[in-house]
Amino acid sequence: MMKQSYRHVVSRSIGLSCRRPLLPLRYVSKLSFRPQDKRAEPRLGSFLACVAAAGIAASTALFQSRRHVEAEAASPPGRTIRLSEVREHGAKAERRWVVKGTSVYDITDWIPNHPGGEVILRAVGGVIDQYWDIFSIHKKQDVYDVLEQYYIGELDHQDLVDGKVPVDDIEDPFVTDPTRDPSLIVHTERPCNAEAALESLKTYITPNKAFYVRNHLWVPAVDEETFTLKIELPDGEEKTYTMQDLRAKFKPVQITATLQCSGNRRRHMSEEARYAQGLQWDIGGLSNATWTGVRLREVLAHAGFTDDDVEESETKHVQFYGAEAYGASIPVEKALDRYGDVLLVHTMNGEPLPRDHGHPLRVLVPGHVAARSVKWLSKIVLSEIECQSQWQQRDYKCFGPNQGGSDVDWDSAPAIQEVPVQSAIVTLRDVSADNKLLQVYGLEEDSVQVEGYALSGGGRRIVRVDVSADDGRSWNQADLLPDEAEGTKSWAWTRWRYIVPKRLAGRQFVVKAVDDSNNVQPESYEAHYNFRGNLTNGWHRVPYKRRSQGKQ
Amino acid sequence: MMKQSYRHVVSRSIGLSCRRPLLPLRYVSKLSFRPQDKRAEPRLGSFLACVAAAGIAASTALFQSRRHVEAEAASPPGRTIRLSEVREHGAKAERRWVVKGTSVYDITDWIPNHPGGEVILRAVGGVIDQYWDIFSIHKKQDVYDVLEQYYIGELDHQDLVDGKVPVDDIEDPFVTDPTRDPSLIVHTERPCNAEAALESLKTYITPNKAFYVRNHLWVPAVDEETFTLKIELPDGEEKTYTMQDLRAKFKPVQITATLQCSGNRRRHMSEEARYAQGLQWDIGGLSNATWTGVRLREVLAHAGFTDDDVEESETKHVQFYGAEAYGASIPVEKALDRYGDVLLVHTMNGEPLPRDHGHPLRVLVPGHVAARSVKWLSKIVLSEIECQSQWQQRDYKCFGPNQGGSDVDWDSAPAIQEVPVQSAIVTLRDVSADNKLLQVYGLEEDSVQVEGYALSGGGRRIVRVDVSADDGRSWNQADLLPDEAEGTKSWAWTRWRYIVPKRLAGRQFVVKAVDDSNNVQPESYEAHYNFRGNLTNGWHRVPYKRRSQGKQ
Repeated sequence: MMKQSYRHVVSRSIGLSCRRPLLPLRYVSKLSFRPQDKRAEPRLGSFLACVAAAGIAASTALFQSRRHVEAEAASPPGRTIRLSEVREHGAKAERRWVVKGTSVYDITDWIPNHPGGEVILRAVGGVIDQYWDIFSIHKKQDVYDVLEQYYIGELDHQDLVDGKVPVDDIEDPFVTDPTRDPSLIVHTERPCNAEAALESLKTYITPNKAFYVRNHLWVPAVDEETFTLKIELPDGEEKTYTMQDLRAKFKPVQITATLQCSGNRRRHMSEEARYAQGLQWDIGGLSNATWTGVRLREVLAHAGFTDDDVEESETKHVQFYGAEAYGASIPVEKALDRYGDVLLVHTMNGEPLPRDHGHPLRVLVPGHVAARSVKWLSKIVLSEIECQSQWQQRDYKCFGPNQGGSDVDWDSAPAIQEVPVQSAIVTLRDVSADNKLLQVYGLEEDSVQVEGYALSGGGRRIVRVDVSADDGRSWNQADLLPDEAEGTKSWAWTRWRYIVPKRLAGRQFVVKAVDDSNNVQPESYEAHYNFRGNLTNGWHRVPYKRRSQGKQ
Repeated sequence: MMKQSYRHVVSRSIGLSCRRPLLPLRYVSKLSFRPQDKRAEPRLGSFLACVAAAGIAASTALFQSRRHVEAEAASPPGRTIRLSEVREHGAKAERRWVVKGTSVYDITDWIPNHPGGEVILRAVGGVIDQYWDIFSIHKKQDVYDVLEQYYIGELDHQDLVDGKVPVDDIEDPFVTDPTRDPSLIVHTERPCNAEAALESLKTYITPNKAFYVRNHLWVPAVDEETFTLKIELPDGEEKTYTMQDLRAKFKPVQITATLQCSGNRRRHMSEEARYAQGLQWDIGGLSNATWTGVRLREVLAHAGFTDDDVEESETKHVQFYGAEAYGASIPVEKALDRYGDVLLVHTMNGEPLPRDHGHPLRVLVPGHVAARSVKWLSKIVLSEIECQSQWQQRDYKCFGPNQGGSDVDWDSAPAIQEVPVQSAIVTLRDVSADNKLLQVYGLEEDSVQVEGYALSGGGRRIVRVDVSADDGRSWNQADLLPDEAEGTKSWAWTRWRYIVPKRLAGRQFVVKAVDDSNNVQPESYEAHYNFRGNLTNGWHRVPYKRRSQGKQ
């Protein structure tokens, strides 16, 4: 209690640079020899089994600790190591090693920081190249940099064949991923992380094919006919539902809800404050759809769990598990709230749920960060504790601006659930004086049309959108467009429009929104920096370049 | 639809000055004559009857329109007017006049802006001095200034006695107000508006006598023995409950909740941005107590209204009326929410509800602005519409920073319900190196101890409090003190403590808090200015004056 750190970090001083070469400088070609032992090479079969048990991260923020970077240059050149010795440093050993190429790394001290958790233990004591070939998200300079910190030596040339350690092929779970729409802006292919194009943010409902994709792993192939959803009650009893059960036993409910990635607008955090770990999403890390499904509270009641069972059973969380191994949880109050609109969804915009969005069944937790709306739902657990996955315990948390990526006390911050108020400018364009739209606004001069989205968490309605045409010196209110959402609360974004005479337009437009709890967006980014760049919601600023016909 | 104003007001340019003399310059002494007619002088009896029907404001923001100020200097000197002519401009006339002293004002155009609504009609056609003597909140330069805008002339000397219009005494409803604790910082006496002293903000539970007082009118004397609460159901049926009924029929529930005035910290808005209308509360416009009562949802269910009746009856709001005439409402979802903890309270910190806080019964709407926790509760109405009182439709709303006090489209903003994240520094003091507290923190040098409160609306928990010792350049986390609150959600403030070596203390300390929806406080005040100064929650900055023993 009351422990406190006195490191008074000046926030602006610790920006990280990622401008380093993609291969470590000491990489040299190796001679090829036959390996002594390949028995213990992990295969994907057991690997996947473990994934299902422990969860694996294909998180975009892979390596957190950079504190040893400076020591790297001074590290010893490394000794020569036999592959048999590497094998002895597997999951059960005190020190755990991996081989990448021909180099050996003792990653023991880093394992607790692996976004995927302990699943990495399946790869220790052997070669990691083939896993990285599949989880290509690892192939980033950040990841190489951190790995280099743990370099201990080079494999003995006696263990190499054609300069490499021969390994068995492992099955690639991504080969059955669906084909994606070319409109998506792809950040990573494996797993697929792709944001909605600006053009796709202009309609109230985002078409399924243009809906942003945020996968943590591969897309599992789930057969709707044989699919079952298991519900584990507080006493351990398990109930099972087929898709047919869900459709037949419960009233279909339709709601309109925006899903937003916690990393939406992370790029702005990196640009306006300091580099924030993870995929550099612009403003397209969210999309809006109409979802059809059944109420989770009704399914739980059918399974034997209602409001009245919460207290006695000491149930506090509802955990969701996806077929690919992802897991997350929400507070039980949200799950049971009759105004909470938590659904088990089978239909998206009137079509069967696409594979990228959780076919045949996903959770929809409106008002919460999208990471809780678990896709390819296979199991629900009513529990006293949160889901223990990486995605609940580490990845989706916010820390103070003074917290760097190392020495993180993960338990000191809660898992993100509801999200804060947010807005962004999608369109900023000149409109000539004769445009018919201007007549609606009573304008008869060259103007600038600004449009965008605003939303908040927890069902909080957007009540005002302030737009500045002069970089925040003065403000006026945008019109909130009268799109109609279905649902108990405000789960969907609000689109807005603002038109201002061109002569009043300055160098930069700014937007900020207010929700019905009167929460507002922060002006700056630095004071709200968090090293994961989660929930970036500073004022959105977009430069305006005056075209030639404008005055001055 | 899509109507939009193009007045692009530069926010900083329209600051209002209130530095004007307390009496209009043209005031001169008058000769005394006997009045012709005093029949129509309104008495408090009928006045109070009307109050109960229409509601009256003793709001702190009395006059909104200042647009005619410039015209005042050029106004004609005014003509001589007989009192009989004034009498003809009463409530039923097209133009409504009042007499203040010996001057006559045509306030017709201003009446729609009266914070108390149409009750002012009881005073038109006559002299207002005796009302202002009672509602002394009117005696402010702002109010005189606005009244002057409507000056039309002077009473004929034939109507005066000893220089005044003789009027009957009217009953003073404030004479039975309770005596207040001297610790309270009184902003107005009639009605009583008094904030909690800094000293009272240092304990988790605020003692009843030190709890801030925010009364809109006088304190009604309600006899608990004969008291009844009426509940009007959607079909018009009325159920009645005595205090004995409430205590006997429903389980007592105890919760800890902070009540916060929407004007808390308004002073900071006025000081850091522009003058905001209303009482200039510092950081003591809130207090925390443990409340005991019965659940509103259970009482409503007993009266015949449950969750299942909402949809069919189209009930959207629960209206509350106090015995003194105050009225407000909340959304029906909040009232029925089993995690909403809305109580009908009879006990405060283990004692019968004090008269200033609603004896014998008040509503407690935790997580919402205190203005919805109606005191001296006498009636509940289940309705399709909000309460139509001034306090629901006008006073407690927020507008954009470009909105001045005139030409307000009141319906364009929603009534404040849930409040945003908030924090303040209560204590900032030097601690010498030998202080035992420092041992807990492992500090052995002269330090600065900072303490305060943080809270949010809607039951959202405070998850982090960031403190800066150098005016926002760097941040560290305060310890959140482990006070234990009772209740389903986080309705009570969180106290926090931060201790920093004195050598690291700069010229100003700053605090900002984060709630569990990751909403944050805005850095600045100007961009979030609203002319009523409601819900001021910019970063709280407190200058630090280094004592002599400090270095540099």
